[in-house]
Amino acid sequence: MSTHSRPVLEAAGPSVASLLARTEQRLTEIASGHGDALGEHAVNTLAAGGKRLRPVLVFLCAGGADSDDLVRAGAAVELLHMATLVHDDVLDRAPMRRGRPTVFWAAGRKAATSTGDFLFSRAFAELVQTANADAIRALSDASSALAQGELLQRADAFSPDVTEERYFERCRLKTGRLFEAACRLGAVLGEPGATAADGLGAFGDRIGLAFQLFDDILDVSGPPDQTGKGRGTDLLDGTVTLPLILARREDAALRDARPASTAEAERLCDRIQATTAIKESRYTALGFVTEAKRVLASLELSEPQRRALELVADGVVARYS
Amino acid sequence: MSTHSRPVLEAAGPSVASLLARTEQRLTEIASGHGDALGEHAVNTLAAGGKRLRPVLVFLCAGGADSDDLVRAGAAVELLHMATLVHDDVLDRAPMRRGRPTVFWAAGRKAATSTGDFLFSRAFAELVQTANADAIRALSDASSALAQGELLQRADAFSPDVTEERYFERCRLKTGRLFEAACRLGAVLGEPGATAADGLGAFGDRIGLAFQLFDDILDVSGPPDQTGKGRGTDLLDGTVTLPLILARREDAALRDARPASTAEAERLCDRIQATTAIKESRYTALGFVTEAKRVLASLELSEPQRRALELVADGVVARYS
Repeated sequence: MSTHSRPVLEAAGPSVASLLARTEQRLTEIASGHGDALGEHAVNTLAAGGKRLRPVLVFLCAGGADSDDLVRAGAAVELLHMATLVHDDVLDRAPMRRGRPTVFWAAGRKAATSTGDFLFSRAFAELVQTANADAIRALSDASSALAQGELLQRADAFSPDVTEERYFERCRLKTGRLFEAACRLGAVLGEPGATAADGLGAFGDRIGLAFQLFDDILDVSGPPDQTGKGRGTDLLDGTVTLPLILARREDAALRDARPASTAEAERLCDRIQATTAIKESRYTALGFVTEAKRVLASLELSEPQRRALELVADGVVARYS
Repeated sequence: MSTHSRPVLEAAGPSVASLLARTEQRLTEIASGHGDALGEHAVNTLAAGGKRLRPVLVFLCAGGADSDDLVRAGAAVELLHMATLVHDDVLDRAPMRRGRPTVFWAAGRKAATSTGDFLFSRAFAELVQTANADAIRALSDASSALAQGELLQRADAFSPDVTEERYFERCRLKTGRLFEAACRLGAVLGEPGATAADGLGAFGDRIGLAFQLFDDILDVSGPPDQTGKGRGTDLLDGTVTLPLILARREDAALRDARPASTAEAERLCDRIQATTAIKESRYTALGFVTEAKRVLASLELSEPQRRALELVADGVVARYS
């Protein structure tokens, strides 16, 4: 768990901590219950941890409810998230993630692609057990959106013509929709019920957009000791993010930026930082957080639930500052 | 449609032909409704056609029922099948499939991996609309099995120690389980109902095993003008199949077979054909077909339904002879 999660858990009460612990246990069971080759890759992927932010959103949106179905939903969103990470690492030929070798690096692209497919499948297998059609629809919509977002990113790679609008569309597909699904799952399987799913889903969408945007800002501004990777990986991959889109308007030399080395990518990051792009991007991200909180204010929630969700929103910002 | 499907459709009656036509239409809608980049790859994949054998099994097992849910199930099994083909082509760096360039070849490994993920997701999105938990569980189980089978295949690549037992386990995971799922889907969404799902599923499993085994035999025995690809692709990939496992017992030189060229792979195919392995493999496959028919005989089915399913079983054999 990241450091900013402790206040969230304290505000949310003991049921969320218990749900998270059971989700962790369930994820380990799923990874270790399917044969040697698979188990090894999947267990390593799961053990690498991460913030479990999406399960946390499921549980916080469930409004104090506690059930095995919620654990299944928490495991399902995390499995789907991990499936996309494993496939992303294959596509980017990434050696490390979260300080560990990726499945791609340890076992090769073939095993990694299959491991991703397996994690994908298990996400649905897990959620199916809730027998809740709204829940399964939320996950399958998010899953389709993730793949579409990934395709959009590849289609726009190194393009000098990516618009802000198209960038936000991609962020929504790649990140917002799964955050939205996590919140929807909590609503439909928890106390709030299906009628609250749209509102909580809208909160998740804005948080997801802010999360992605801060991630893209950090890739330019660093510092590497906070992000765990060098600056400019997006520039090297050809992923056109808002900081680059905005900076190009002030610095025409960035229009056809195609760094051939990490050193060159770092220099391009410096050029982007010399423009107003980072400040503007940051304001845009803070705008999404503000919008998320405004959505919260319009919903009927218990005070502990509202407080915990606000802390999640603040945590997305804290990650940056 | 392959040539042997016409008698199947004639035996099955007009509802199956109508269900198939609507499935085709639905698949086109799904592929073309998701943006330019994706649409292009997905439409090409779908248009490449194929036998639509899995949807046919769904409809035949539905026992004359006709509903939009059956069309969704037919589309879902075909989407899942196609997702695995697209990923397989990435893993094998395959340039052609069914006489067309693969997505991998036309658009690169990144776009192809994402296209596969998208087709995966749409399979579940499609089936979720039936709101039938048994149906969704059947698909997610098959989907997990497919990924496990793929991993098993990669783990066993070029291994001299693959047993028959392990080979059949892989065939079941890679092929049998999706055939089984197709039959289960027809049962639970059609006339027979959930109580008939196990029996029809067992039929599907045996047909799937026979199908995979004949496929592996054809890869050794050809002729290429029937299979549309050169002989020995499994040997080149390191995929250890029953013909090789059996031939190794008679010809020790095949134990560490690792051909470096297509010409060498063809020569190894000749060596396998010089043993009794092909004949034995063929008998084993015919055994699965016989078993499938025996399962059919034990089920309460209408005569047209039984006749059509028997013709599917015969079609799997006809593919070989």
